[in-house]
Amino acid sequence: MRLSKTFVKTLREAPKDELAKNGALLSRAGYIHKEMAGAYDYLPLGIKVIENIKQIIREELNALGCEEVLMTSLQNPEPWEKTGRFSDQEVDIWFKTELASGGTLGLAPTHEEPIVNMMKSYVASYKDLPLYVYQFQTKFRNELRAKSGLMRGREFLMKDLYSFHASEEDLDSFYEKVEEAYTRIFKRLGIGNDTYKTFASGGIFSKYSHEYQTVLPVGEDTIYYNSDHSVVLNKEVYNDEVLTDLGVKGVEFAETTAAEVGNIFKLKFKYSEPLGLKFSSEDNESKTVYMGCYGLGVSRVMGVIAEKFADEKGLVWPESIAPFKYYLVGIGENGIKEAEKLYANRENEILFDDRDVRPGEKFADAELMGIPYRVVISDKTLAEGSAEITDRRTGESKLVKLSEI
Amino acid sequence: MRLSKTFVKTLREAPKDELAKNGALLSRAGYIHKEMAGAYDYLPLGIKVIENIKQIIREELNALGCEEVLMTSLQNPEPWEKTGRFSDQEVDIWFKTELASGGTLGLAPTHEEPIVNMMKSYVASYKDLPLYVYQFQTKFRNELRAKSGLMRGREFLMKDLYSFHASEEDLDSFYEKVEEAYTRIFKRLGIGNDTYKTFASGGIFSKYSHEYQTVLPVGEDTIYYNSDHSVVLNKEVYNDEVLTDLGVKGVEFAETTAAEVGNIFKLKFKYSEPLGLKFSSEDNESKTVYMGCYGLGVSRVMGVIAEKFADEKGLVWPESIAPFKYYLVGIGENGIKEAEKLYANRENEILFDDRDVRPGEKFADAELMGIPYRVVISDKTLAEGSAEITDRRTGESKLVKLSEI
Repeated sequence: MRLSKTFVKTLREAPKDELAKNGALLSRAGYIHKEMAGAYDYLPLGIKVIENIKQIIREELNALGCEEVLMTSLQNPEPWEKTGRFSDQEVDIWFKTELASGGTLGLAPTHEEPIVNMMKSYVASYKDLPLYVYQFQTKFRNELRAKSGLMRGREFLMKDLYSFHASEEDLDSFYEKVEEAYTRIFKRLGIGNDTYKTFASGGIFSKYSHEYQTVLPVGEDTIYYNSDHSVVLNKEVYNDEVLTDLGVKGVEFAETTAAEVGNIFKLKFKYSEPLGLKFSSEDNESKTVYMGCYGLGVSRVMGVIAEKFADEKGLVWPESIAPFKYYLVGIGENGIKEAEKLYANRENEILFDDRDVRPGEKFADAELMGIPYRVVISDKTLAEGSAEITDRRTGESKLVKLSEI
Repeated sequence: MRLSKTFVKTLREAPKDELAKNGALLSRAGYIHKEMAGAYDYLPLGIKVIENIKQIIREELNALGCEEVLMTSLQNPEPWEKTGRFSDQEVDIWFKTELASGGTLGLAPTHEEPIVNMMKSYVASYKDLPLYVYQFQTKFRNELRAKSGLMRGREFLMKDLYSFHASEEDLDSFYEKVEEAYTRIFKRLGIGNDTYKTFASGGIFSKYSHEYQTVLPVGEDTIYYNSDHSVVLNKEVYNDEVLTDLGVKGVEFAETTAAEVGNIFKLKFKYSEPLGLKFSSEDNESKTVYMGCYGLGVSRVMGVIAEKFADEKGLVWPESIAPFKYYLVGIGENGIKEAEKLYANRENEILFDDRDVRPGEKFADAELMGIPYRVVISDKTLAEGSAEITDRRTGESKLVKLSEI
């Protein structure tokens, strides 16, 4: 992409009401535009980051045999009333709206009820199970406060996966596969080392759920971890009963703040029972389907990564999700000519700063935008037949022969 | 994709309240699932069709230098109040909702106001113009009736492009380029021959807008066309004044029903003036930005194409947007073995019916799903070293050597 050809510019100022570092930097660097607290537009660079995150998740889930769907935001109350969750007392973050032809609708904050309802058309026999269905879908949550940039959205993008099983063993075995997939996903996203599977509170059918928590100073959660991070607990379950339960009573735990980037849950019959999702077993008995659900916040992960790796100069993207791998600058007539040659046919990898502005301004924008490698070609580097490549993360520069790039 | 591995099945019955042929067939064939009138979930095959349509549009728009963004559905009233369009009297299809922290929000039925508002951050000088920005975005419209399947949605996917110019001449010239791109898009979508650029009513700043109307018996619009389709008018502007205006008074026009698949509009100052989107000219004067907007209904196009080409056996997709090009069936041990070989590494092109069901059931599903070419391998075809390929549209079959497929 040529910077001269895009409408996006870096901005000196973030929106006045933007309190979160990720929101301010992503706005200034031209990735997002704030519509209101918790609701952001994605600009061309922001779309690229979102799509890169989605693609990593998609590849890992498809490898497990998961299938992609896209469900509606508008929700009929009916299935939600069967589980009691249409009530504003029960679920306090609904956006609701009135249908012109009569009746109240909700905007889906999650999709357990409609997907269970839908699956009644597709699950009849044990032969139809197991099934794994996911979507990347815009969720709406009527948060009272949304001051954390992309980390807490009123309208945000989430991956939600639902699994359907004939037995608890099959659910347990798939749940483990998703745990492994999540480990790979967070590693590929560049936050593997700082993201922990964390015990959190469960529900009617399961004592615990698991959250994926990324260590972060401004994270909204507090977690406790042992020395090798093999046992990590959310504050809500950090008590004697749970420590005893997990066999870690007396072990020393350290406290830190973290941001939740995923949540996986053995639902078992929680939704399939009230909604009547049944199958006929091999013995021709009518049985209730076992379920699991597995969330991962796509736009939240983008916010967490922006927040976590940023330095005083701006954003620092992991290569795997950066909108472009290289930020290219040509200096002087020859430098520009060679830069044009390098750019040709590599438009997907290179953000080419071909604007008619001073090199200093280009360097500052390269840093603010957080592109992993800045490539500068000038008379000085050409004297060595080279380009200077600077690593955004470490700041280290080296000359690389043009023929080797 | 292997049919044995997907949760989707063809269904004997469409939803009871589904009155539209496109909605009924797409439901039965496993492309969509109805949540309520005008709101549908997309199943794996449906997502593929939608993505194919999006990709054709994206390629044609990117070739014009258009840039992709993604704006929010949640809307602050403020910019809409400046144009008078937050009023339910003015725009009668709003879904509105209350923010927990106070205030009313709307769900965007279109995006002129927020994009003009956003562009105030990015347009300052004539040097920043022209700009062309589009999105594929879910629109919400509180339709009183929505009985036309994907052809009239309460929640639906639309491509909306907005252009920003320093002069009327530049707007006019880009408008023509979009007309040409739309012609290419509809041709690639397989409805080029039956989709006409149609005069429709304009607004304050332009006498006419143009709609793209696809001839269709169940279309909601009535259009009038001359013998070579060079002048086509929506009923709303089919009157003596307009015919005189266009110099076609006395020409014979025929009437037909059609479905609107796109709408392009020279907005000029309609939104940029009340919202104050200005730029400084070369002479350093503050001037108002000229605008155009260009809509294309993505999910509606899917519905129109489903509706238009379907026959008594089911859907008939144009190759360009079909979820798969081939529907593969192996019959008998050898046929299945050869089918497996053919399928290997061509998972993106082939929908492989590897289910343990009778060939007759497979053939019926192939027809219902509307995959362009059915490929059958059996002892009979293998005796000729061939597979039988049947064209879904014409029903014609021929033997093709396996080595040539």
